[in-house]
Amino acid sequence: MSSKTNPGRFFEDYKVGQVIRHAVPRTLGQGERALYHALYPARGALYSSDAFAASCGLHGAPLDDLIAFHTVFGKTVPDVSLNAVANLGYAEGRWLAPVWPGDTLASTSEVIGLKQNSNGKTGVVWVRTTGRNQHGTDVLSYVRWVMVRKRDAAAPAPETVVPQLSDAVAPGDLVIPKGLYFTGYDFELAGEPHRLGDYRPGEVIHHVDGVTIEEAEHMLATRLWQNTAKVHFDATHRPDGKRLIYGGHVISLARALSFNGLANAQMIVGLNAGAHANPCFAGDTVRAWSEVLDTAKTSAPGVGAIRLRLVATKGDGEGLKDGAGKYLPHVLLDLDYWALMPV
Amino acid sequence: MSSKTNPGRFFEDYKVGQVIRHAVPRTLGQGERALYHALYPARGALYSSDAFAASCGLHGAPLDDLIAFHTVFGKTVPDVSLNAVANLGYAEGRWLAPVWPGDTLASTSEVIGLKQNSNGKTGVVWVRTTGRNQHGTDVLSYVRWVMVRKRDAAAPAPETVVPQLSDAVAPGDLVIPKGLYFTGYDFELAGEPHRLGDYRPGEVIHHVDGVTIEEAEHMLATRLWQNTAKVHFDATHRPDGKRLIYGGHVISLARALSFNGLANAQMIVGLNAGAHANPCFAGDTVRAWSEVLDTAKTSAPGVGAIRLRLVATKGDGEGLKDGAGKYLPHVLLDLDYWALMPV
Amino acid sequence: MSSKTNPGRFFEDYKVGQVIRHAVPRTLGQGERALYHALYPARGALYSSDAFAASCGLHGAPLDDLIAFHTVFGKTVPDVSLNAVANLGYAEGRWLAPVWPGDTLASTSEVIGLKQNSNGKTGVVWVRTTGRNQHGTDVLSYVRWVMVRKRDAAAPAPETVVPQLSDAVAPGDLVIPKGLYFTGYDFELAGEPHRLGDYRPGEVIHHVDGVTIEEAEHMLATRLWQNTAKVHFDATHRPDGKRLIYGGHVISLARALSFNGLANAQMIVGLNAGAHANPCFAGDTVRAWSEVLDTAKTSAPGVGAIRLRLVATKGDGEGLKDGAGKYLPHVLLDLDYWALMPV
Repeated sequence: MSSKTNPGRFFEDYKVGQVIRHAVPRTLGQGERALYHALYPARGALYSSDAFAASCGLHGAPLDDLIAFHTVFGKTVPDVSLNAVANLGYAEGRWLAPVWPGDTLASTSEVIGLKQNSNGKTGVVWVRTTGRNQHGTDVLSYVRWVMVRKRDAAAPAPETVVPQLSDAVAPGDLVIPKGLYFTGYDFELAGEPHRLGDYRPGEVIHHVDGVTIEEAEHMLATRLWQNTAKVHFDATHRPDGKRLIYGGHVISLARALSFNGLANAQMIVGLNAGAHANPCFAGDTVRAWSEVLDTAKTSAPGVGAIRLRLVATKGDGEGLKDGAGKYLPHVLLDLDYWALMPV
Repeated sequence: MSSKTNPGRFFEDYKVGQVIRHAVPRTLGQGERALYHALYPARGALYSSDAFAASCGLHGAPLDDLIAFHTVFGKTVPDVSLNAVANLGYAEGRWLAPVWPGDTLASTSEVIGLKQNSNGKTGVVWVRTTGRNQHGTDVLSYVRWVMVRKRDAAAPAPETVVPQLSDAVAPGDLVIPKGLYFTGYDFELAGEPHRLGDYRPGEVIHHVDGVTIEEAEHMLATRLWQNTAKVHFDATHRPDGKRLIYGGHVISLARALSFNGLANAQMIVGLNAGAHANPCFAGDTVRAWSEVLDTAKTSAPGVGAIRLRLVATKGDGEGLKDGAGKYLPHVLLDLDYWALMPV
Repeated sequence: MSSKTNPGRFFEDYKVGQVIRHAVPRTLGQGERALYHALYPARGALYSSDAFAASCGLHGAPLDDLIAFHTVFGKTVPDVSLNAVANLGYAEGRWLAPVWPGDTLASTSEVIGLKQNSNGKTGVVWVRTTGRNQHGTDVLSYVRWVMVRKRDAAAPAPETVVPQLSDAVAPGDLVIPKGLYFTGYDFELAGEPHRLGDYRPGEVIHHVDGVTIEEAEHMLATRLWQNTAKVHFDATHRPDGKRLIYGGHVISLARALSFNGLANAQMIVGLNAGAHANPCFAGDTVRAWSEVLDTAKTSAPGVGAIRLRLVATKGDGEGLKDGAGKYLPHVLLDLDYWALMPV
């Protein structure tokens, strides 16, 4: 039997400072844009219309920021999370340049932290992943940490290194796409009249719509991002034949649903934190609500930033966490991000 | 709780003469073309092949006429049919210019009629919707009327205005795409030898094939057109978990099935009337038949027009209407349209 | 009732030497590429990245070789296999030029063999099919033979002509895309370190991953290739409502799964033989293994050829054939092909 297939890395294969160059660069184009619109109820005007994007100072509509995220993330799966038990968190995510149709993205990850768990069977790995385009320009950077199995429980524990991570990206560190302005912003065409000044921290917006997920949909999406984790595709992993849905599918679904109430929260520029609170399966009906966490100015004309908590849920449960701080079973996603909005 | 989400318009929110500029312009491209071919068994040569379209005088293959229709229609949903009880009819539809990959479409609707129903709880709204490209050229115009809920049954009825609508677009009013000719038309490559002169009014063509619809397919399609009506996506609306399929999905499916027998009915240029006779659900096997209603000359070389009734059915029922003129339960769609065909 | 629909050809409609020009040329583009990535877990770097393809001497990433195959094949269905009982085999397949986004493909088939079966009800038809682009350049040629129903069992049998077919394409007959070189090949970006010299005839590679197929997925794919065979789409053909999955869907799925262990088996250039051993249905979990059959040099810098047997299976069965040489029931596909790999 050949041993040429990739078994994935185990906890003891990671060293702090190690840089992993992930395989299979990917050219993204109009096809991926169209598929994004078929897979998610996305309606953000800046991504839907070249003409609208041009009216905001861009030379055309960039690809959705989450297309960049999923593509960069997908490349890391064979090296980072093939033997992962859990995707624990995100931090310090920043979108650094728009991705245009025709761009080719590749990813690298640097191991920035390691901590073996007390059971000796697993450990936590922190990586800082960077996506780069064909011109060598960084387009996205974020920290992710995952729990990974050890190959051999008897292997010695590495020195514990836990990185210091910001609770949130500071507004001054957000990168505004070159040339962007919202001074001539057409609120009617964008779909809602609400500008940054209309939102107050603490305000909660229920996004009304629900979408019931089918197996075919999340598999099409997850393959599109070349994310190869078996659990998303192979029904024989579970007795009920359901496949575990890629957490990023829920992020995109919830973000698209949030159009209704946040139509002007256009470009995502920062990812402060994120938790996949509970697994999502085909047949679940996903709904979303957002809470305004903060607002900030930026240096670009007419462009402000809004910090949002985006929560995706399934079924009819209410609330977020129980008394012990544990996510309630109907909560799928708790995401904390910055988006750009006309002031 | 925030009140920023869009509850949709109710009957009393419409005034005759009101013009609604619909949100979210959309750039359409090669991705939408490919998806159209994945979602429907479309084989019309003019839309499938740039080379074939060039042999008919066009600079390349336009996007399918129904891509234009669905996109223009989809934009109207949040403003026209979010609180609609029923989609009652279409009239005076004309395709005014081809849509090319890269074009951006936006829609506006003018309210041209209002009539409160005798129950006082609903009313009928007539709108004339126009789709326009990024150059300001109209690409499509049609009248649609829907039954809409009143917010408040006690609100006074508006003055009744019922627009005068043509039974059919007159052949002389059909717009032929600039440069189109069928004088060198390759019938073998197009798939069938039948030209306009081979069809006679009254002739009925059973299109042989059947397609069983899956939930994932109609949801992908409906999202692609940014049609956000909840009933298409949220399984919790019905006890059986089925979602009501967007009527336009059935139109595209039936039109694609009609290739077998009408391969040379190329471009759709007129929509005379249309009824979504019964709801369609995932699991239904859709079949189609056409009846030739009329034929006409046009001013373009070798180009004639054929008026067709396109009927989509599910299951095995026969016939169209019962003795009282009501559609039989197996009938999904009854569409009356003009297409261009080589003479 | 109109007789304009296509009933398909029957056995007695074929004559040796007859050339059939298949209908509906098709322009392929970035949308088809994106859909291919959504439908199959394809990760070959040469098809995923314009930049990677450029580093191998091409001006950009061609469309996947199997997109060309499915498109050329799909056009033949209405003329060759609409009344086919079984798809019996492939031989002498050669990819003759890459297909680039924007290319338009058309197909022709020449009947090269006929043999009536002893039951008098069916016969075997051999055709050599050629796919050609808009410049008149052949891009693909292969022989396929199918068992086709007779319209009339009493019709006289034609003279039996069984073509002489090669067991395999000779390495010297493989066509290497113009300009291709693998001298600067980046194995890390491609995903695996294994070069041609690391593979030995007889080596077997189990590709680890499994994919459970949904109805929506195979129908989207099959429609995309404009393959209209009823059995793939119409659930009323079988009491269990399942549709027979297009054999080419299994080919693409198995080829994509084979990335894990054969990431550097880049371009497919030869199809030596192929059998669809058992039918595949939605719900089946497809896995794949490959056996190295041969390796060869080519004239292009750094480019070798590897001959592979690719076997797709469903469920957990082991082995390929029973004692009588019949495929075991878990075997879906047994394909013999040549791919190009860095030496």
